[in-house]
Amino acid sequence: MEPTSTKLITRWTDTEPIQIEDELVVEEPLEIRVGQQSLIVVMRTPGHDFELAAGFLYTESLITSGDDIEIIAYCDEEDSEGLDLDAESGWQRNFHANASCGLCGKMTIESVRQQVQPLNSGFHANQGVFYKLNDQLRKAQSVFEKTGGLHAAGLFDEKGELLIIREDIGRHNAVDKVIGHALLADLVPLEQHILMVSGRASFEIVQKALFARIPIIAAVSAASTLAVDLAEEGNLTLIGFMRGQSMAVYSCPERVHRE
Amino acid sequence: MEPTSTKLITRWTDTEPIQIEDELVVEEPLEIRVGQQSLIVVMRTPGHDFELAAGFLYTESLITSGDDIEIIAYCDEEDSEGLDLDAESGWQRNFHANASCGLCGKMTIESVRQQVQPLNSGFHANQGVFYKLNDQLRKAQSVFEKTGGLHAAGLFDEKGELLIIREDIGRHNAVDKVIGHALLADLVPLEQHILMVSGRASFEIVQKALFARIPIIAAVSAASTLAVDLAEEGNLTLIGFMRGQSMAVYSCPERVHRE
Repeated sequence: MEPTSTKLITRWTDTEPIQIEDELVVEEPLEIRVGQQSLIVVMRTPGHDFELAAGFLYTESLITSGDDIEIIAYCDEEDSEGLDLDAESGWQRNFHANASCGLCGKMTIESVRQQVQPLNSGFHANQGVFYKLNDQLRKAQSVFEKTGGLHAAGLFDEKGELLIIREDIGRHNAVDKVIGHALLADLVPLEQHILMVSGRASFEIVQKALFARIPIIAAVSAASTLAVDLAEEGNLTLIGFMRGQSMAVYSCPERVHRE
Repeated sequence: MEPTSTKLITRWTDTEPIQIEDELVVEEPLEIRVGQQSLIVVMRTPGHDFELAAGFLYTESLITSGDDIEIIAYCDEEDSEGLDLDAESGWQRNFHANASCGLCGKMTIESVRQQVQPLNSGFHANQGVFYKLNDQLRKAQSVFEKTGGLHAAGLFDEKGELLIIREDIGRHNAVDKVIGHALLADLVPLEQHILMVSGRASFEIVQKALFARIPIIAAVSAASTLAVDLAEEGNLTLIGFMRGQSMAVYSCPERVHRE
């Protein structure tokens, strides 16, 4: 699988929105197994998967040298138990790292689908509302200005007014804090709101927004393929490269209206 | 606890290095417990911890509304079992989210200390070596240029020549791929090498480098407090804001030599 993938998106500037082909970075789950045992599912960009598996095992202290690895292989669906590798090698103390993204990845994504119902919100906003989000987020980012080390997540109302901002070294944490605030303040479901994040839009960010029923996410940077896929499935409007008078709408563009 | 913390660092430009006070973003482990049960340890920036706990539980589908939360409280060391909260509330089906960073955080950090021996590498490099790292990393970043959505990690030799670069949507994955490559190529321990990362330097990045015995990390962006703490304990040189002819040396500055 390639590390990037093309997609037709809607590019907004101060003129008419246009449809263009954009290149997205691929995000896909990879399940790392040792022998028959599943160790972890990591969200990763395909490529150098065996190195990723080896490096993960090593830096998590599960192996102490390359000699601990007998073989690294993709795990086919037929071979999902990893049994014939064991049988073939004939060693008792083999330490296999079998990596698979097909079946296991699907299982992960499907578990999300089951939990989150698609949005049926008719919420929309004018382009001018979006163009003022980033400025407000930046101005409200108190810690970032000092350290350059924090992600921010902001919740905006339908007029583009900032309701709440939270900062954290972890991107997902900033979003969890915003949604947690809304939950504790009894504001959920957030059906008339826009979530803005200072960095990239990943699968997990979209997933969190869907749980809180937020119909629109705007990210300062790029969105991944899996984030866009989930946004489309969840009927959520996902916007990337939200900077100044410009944005890239990856899914459900009907929620962005021309002024 | 405050979200930022000041630290004396060594600032290098094209002139003499100077000691300045810098402001770092705080990274600290937070253990989220439900009742007596530990759920997860998240690395987070202190502040709005209850919102973080509530948001995490909600977006992980462990609760379905704010009504599922009876009480959120910090868990003192004396109260680490969460028992008296249960006793006080008198409910059978309480759903407590008790969050603690003190004891549990220490346990996490101590488990790293036990596994990783401090470096005793005499490796050092001239300032000019560092100043050319970023350019090489950027030029070698094939996917980033197209999508704007990827992190990169590069491994450099003692002359500052790029040996290997890996890109991934996950910062830690990019580092795991680099270290995994070195492991599979029998290059570990990497005692004469520099690891450069395109984003920030977090605790986990330093931990991974220590496992591979890499003595120097250079990051394009900021380092967190916990990353610096671990670097100091591990005798690892941690450099941030590595851009052009400028860098901030957070720990073990003796490995950076003036030309």
